[in-house]
Amino acid sequence: MINKLVDSIREKNTPIVVGLDPMLKFIPQHIREKAYREFGETLEGAAEAIWQFNKEIVDYTYDLIPAVKPQIAMYEQFGIEGLKVYKRTVDYCREKGLIVIGDIKRGDIGSTSEAYAVGHLGRVQVGSKTYAGFEEDFATVNPYFGTDGVKPFIDVCREENRGLFILVKTSNPSSGEFQDRLVDGRPLYEIVGEKVAEWGESHMGKDYSYVGAVVGATYPEMGKVLRKLMPKAFILVPGYGEQGGKGADLVHFFHEDGLGAIVNSSRGIIAAYQQEAYASYGADHFGEASRAAVEDMKKDINQALGRE
Amino acid sequence: MINKLVDSIREKNTPIVVGLDPMLKFIPQHIREKAYREFGETLEGAAEAIWQFNKEIVDYTYDLIPAVKPQIAMYEQFGIEGLKVYKRTVDYCREKGLIVIGDIKRGDIGSTSEAYAVGHLGRVQVGSKTYAGFEEDFATVNPYFGTDGVKPFIDVCREENRGLFILVKTSNPSSGEFQDRLVDGRPLYEIVGEKVAEWGESHMGKDYSYVGAVVGATYPEMGKVLRKLMPKAFILVPGYGEQGGKGADLVHFFHEDGLGAIVNSSRGIIAAYQQEAYASYGADHFGEASRAAVEDMKKDINQALGRE
Repeated sequence: MINKLVDSIREKNTPIVVGLDPMLKFIPQHIREKAYREFGETLEGAAEAIWQFNKEIVDYTYDLIPAVKPQIAMYEQFGIEGLKVYKRTVDYCREKGLIVIGDIKRGDIGSTSEAYAVGHLGRVQVGSKTYAGFEEDFATVNPYFGTDGVKPFIDVCREENRGLFILVKTSNPSSGEFQDRLVDGRPLYEIVGEKVAEWGESHMGKDYSYVGAVVGATYPEMGKVLRKLMPKAFILVPGYGEQGGKGADLVHFFHEDGLGAIVNSSRGIIAAYQQEAYASYGADHFGEASRAAVEDMKKDINQALGRE
Repeated sequence: MINKLVDSIREKNTPIVVGLDPMLKFIPQHIREKAYREFGETLEGAAEAIWQFNKEIVDYTYDLIPAVKPQIAMYEQFGIEGLKVYKRTVDYCREKGLIVIGDIKRGDIGSTSEAYAVGHLGRVQVGSKTYAGFEEDFATVNPYFGTDGVKPFIDVCREENRGLFILVKTSNPSSGEFQDRLVDGRPLYEIVGEKVAEWGESHMGKDYSYVGAVVGATYPEMGKVLRKLMPKAFILVPGYGEQGGKGADLVHFFHEDGLGAIVNSSRGIIAAYQQEAYASYGADHFGEASRAAVEDMKKDINQALGRE
């Protein structure tokens, strides 16, 4: 799967992942109203609105991008109905040939991590049959439990040819509270980064490991250090756009060949029509606005990488 | 809700929470076979077996215990069908007067944590209406993101009178890999513990804060230090029984009045009939075996606390 991701980034010349994080406030009024007319102002109605919104954004962008990253929390907040749309979105994106990074940030003690891994990346046994619960291609994982909380994810990935992105340095303002604390003179995120590199050795693809890392675009200097510390880890970079990360900040997350990282943008793409730059599309053409935003982001990043 | 938890522990004289973590291998064959006859060897069949299993354990133990802690991963591995049973279990336990600690270990950047908090502890807005997605009373939260990843959970708890248990020192063997690393000469879990105490001040109940902590039974010496460091935090203690924690190890997690902690046992209770000590009940009477295991655990802990 990591090989497929690298190939797809090369083929589409775009190290971009679109974050499908559909807050209701991002969804145009006409989509919401139509869904509520059909299902009422209910969880089913919200789920239908999310589905119609996601589908249009995917239809307008799938040929440009290698991957999507649905944030499961944005679905889970609507309970079971929300999670049904999460699954429907995952399935639809895979049908469209997109790689799906489930942004689930799970992590627990060993036997529990195994259940999460099975549910999201593997197949669960029921009597003599097996079933996939959610079937993402990659999942994000929280490292707080250490090796025995991460290893079950790696084991399932090895069986199923799936991959991981482990949280190393997150994009939010307070990420430094624990992640930057100095351990023997070095920040904790470096210690975690070294572990990611070590874990990754046990499950290598062609050029990169199936075990990648999450490093926020908002911390470019740390990205530079971590890029060197984890040479074989693909880096998922959130925080571009609305969180303040810019194309020029991203250079050091990549290797010199312009590979090694994939940059996420969520609301910058999916709610593009709400921004001044794309307002002329109007809410009726929000899918086209998202497509234009992807094209601009592609230019910004490829220029920064000297690829255009 | 923290006041209700303390009152219920006092009333039932039992600081015990039963972990409803229904792996299929714990479920008696006759329950599984009946479910598969009705629904096939499908995700629906597995979900039905889990539901029948949970219901019997709850029916046989609810009058003895203050709380249950369903581990959502064990349901999530069966996809949507599993999560429906998670919700059904939460609802049923609340109907029975039990406090439900959703062991979800979520945590993310601010806006995403808010969505998790809303989905599990609050109400989500759909047009002019609001709905509860999962409706647990407490949730476990991962602190890796720092304050801005935790605060949205606290904000929702304040509105909804719900509570949290933040991971401080987890029960698994490799928890020390990051959690024990020394920061200015002190282990990281102490730094996290101090933050839990600080966060807790902003949302106090009568004697304890709505913001509690998770500290594994397998690390009693650390429990002793953390008990002092977070005097107002209720401590959720996993790792009793199968993970190696014993009643005598637990004393230091409690205050001298015998309050301040609640001890979880999962397979030790729900799969009691599979253990030698309770084998005489047989698989047909697994609920009674679970009840006996709760009574024995209650004795073990109350003896250690000098309460019996």
